[in-house]
Amino acid sequence: MISLDDLPLRADLVGEEPYGAPQLDVPVVLNVNENPYPPSPAIRQEMAAAIVNAAGTLNRYPDREARALRADLAAYLGHGVTADQVWAANGSNEIMSHLLTAFGGPGRKVLTFAPTYSMYPEYARNTCTEYVTVPRRDDYTLDAELILGAIAEHQPTVVLITTPNNPTGTTVPLEVIDEVCANTDAIVVADEAYQEFSSRPSALELLAKHPRLVVSRTMSKAFALAGGRVGYLAATPAIVDACRIVRLPYHLSAQTQAVARVALAHADELLAQVRALTAEARGFEAWARTHGYAVVDSGANFSLIGRFPDRHQVWQALLDRGILIRETGPAGFLRVSAGTPAEMASLKEALTDLEPERQP
Amino acid sequence: MISLDDLPLRADLVGEEPYGAPQLDVPVVLNVNENPYPPSPAIRQEMAAAIVNAAGTLNRYPDREARALRADLAAYLGHGVTADQVWAANGSNEIMSHLLTAFGGPGRKVLTFAPTYSMYPEYARNTCTEYVTVPRRDDYTLDAELILGAIAEHQPTVVLITTPNNPTGTTVPLEVIDEVCANTDAIVVADEAYQEFSSRPSALELLAKHPRLVVSRTMSKAFALAGGRVGYLAATPAIVDACRIVRLPYHLSAQTQAVARVALAHADELLAQVRALTAEARGFEAWARTHGYAVVDSGANFSLIGRFPDRHQVWQALLDRGILIRETGPAGFLRVSAGTPAEMASLKEALTDLEPERQP
Repeated sequence: MISLDDLPLRADLVGEEPYGAPQLDVPVVLNVNENPYPPSPAIRQEMAAAIVNAAGTLNRYPDREARALRADLAAYLGHGVTADQVWAANGSNEIMSHLLTAFGGPGRKVLTFAPTYSMYPEYARNTCTEYVTVPRRDDYTLDAELILGAIAEHQPTVVLITTPNNPTGTTVPLEVIDEVCANTDAIVVADEAYQEFSSRPSALELLAKHPRLVVSRTMSKAFALAGGRVGYLAATPAIVDACRIVRLPYHLSAQTQAVARVALAHADELLAQVRALTAEARGFEAWARTHGYAVVDSGANFSLIGRFPDRHQVWQALLDRGILIRETGPAGFLRVSAGTPAEMASLKEALTDLEPERQP
Repeated sequence: MISLDDLPLRADLVGEEPYGAPQLDVPVVLNVNENPYPPSPAIRQEMAAAIVNAAGTLNRYPDREARALRADLAAYLGHGVTADQVWAANGSNEIMSHLLTAFGGPGRKVLTFAPTYSMYPEYARNTCTEYVTVPRRDDYTLDAELILGAIAEHQPTVVLITTPNNPTGTTVPLEVIDEVCANTDAIVVADEAYQEFSSRPSALELLAKHPRLVVSRTMSKAFALAGGRVGYLAATPAIVDACRIVRLPYHLSAQTQAVARVALAHADELLAQVRALTAEARGFEAWARTHGYAVVDSGANFSLIGRFPDRHQVWQALLDRGILIRETGPAGFLRVSAGTPAEMASLKEALTDLEPERQP
């Protein structure tokens, strides 16, 4: 049988592997920052009713501009954001791909600050944009001097400021984003995938002031809709227009628009879970600190703890106990998504069991 | 307010407009080759039940590999195709984008035969692949000599053979595809979006013989699922692997996988409508011929008729009568999607009314 080596794969893709966080069927899944709370039975029924309705015209193409969904997203965001300032797509990864297709491309660079989200280089690679990373400070924070220095050095057309950052959970003060935007012509994307879990104000507050600022969000985490695949952004309408040029027509299916609108109608209920999960994450971090772990300050629904002399061994030992976390981030650290109280209790118990293995 | 001209848009996107077939609310919509028959009440209820089920884990990421859906698609395709030979995505436009991202890119060419599908140049542009078209013969048909000559001249890495072709409806004999595949190392994509409406055998018959052959399909037309956004391909597993490298992780939402599987479970019912629509299209063409129109031989659920000295005027006059068709294709022609018997009767009546306007 023919292999990939025999086919005319793009040269820079040769040897690449498909993205592959394990999808394992274990009792406690804390590896991909999912929200542990499924939609309530009432929401599920409402989604079903919305599907019956949407399916009535499923033979027709969906609203190509997803106007109703974008209006709902704008209303959720507040800050005076209007529907024509919102763009939506199949997950924030499609949002980022639209931005890099429009503002990146051959001969251009996207700048990020490492360690950061492991998908970014794939978006860059797919869009033929050069991927440049500059290290964060030792505590994983960012300041305007560091960011502006990196921009001056690398001259990117797109800068991704991830706040809270994945996998460290580190947030970036609004003043830093403000100062950066005031001093560059690059498109500055504040990736706020985990913003709802943070106590810092959103970069949405700066949108009116900085026309090259984009605030990227997802419904995967706060809205417990990872399976629904809805990401979105808020920006000046011209940036939305750029996304509209490069998006594949009818990119958002009728069923996705319908399901997302139901979740948005229940924002209050879902955001109550966000507060519970935030408390769970911060509580786990406090526990970890009192048990002698190094813990990175996080504003997200996950925690980064260490340092493990052999993190893979700990990851495997937890998996052997039915707990799947993520082997990612700086050397010696492991990332843990906030789960239910019972799941976090299982994790703490397992970590206590493994205590001897943490000794250097 | 800032305009797109002020932003660092990729140079080759400057001046581009978003894809824009009109989405107008008129009584008779025959412009985008949609299937006029919505899912039956029974199918809609089944989709709702599938959504209640899928929504139970909507907080979790969907199956990244869409294994169950791909198995169902393989079973539908037959011809010995297995799930690992099938790839699925959000519409055939995402399928094409995966292929061009993997096998196209900067410095590479994709070859098509004009006139053909208006989206192809957008997929090429987004993936930084050079778009090359070579004219079809005067009757819009293709033969191996023409295709192989174009390949020899332009050296593409990807060749798109659209059969039935959009907007002409022209089919390509299997022998032509066979001969082309036997004489090139390029990836040859038989775009069979409208195959179910054709009486020609599918290029699936050639898959076992030609490892660089890809057969692309969609659920939009035959499965009356344009709103559902599901395209797919069948090819050797190595080509599927290439798509898996470049796809955005979790590209297919849980609700899309669920809705598509329900439609596939009702293939028999939906394919009966395909036969009715095919008869409707061929019947309309027979009517048009007897009324003195030029009609292109079509194997799809649409017809291309002409020649109108001022096609825009005819298009507008039909729209004024509540009938939306498509102003596309060769000069002087208009494209008409097959609708219900009542819709086609309205169209014929309106065309008869407009008869005087067809005189040169």
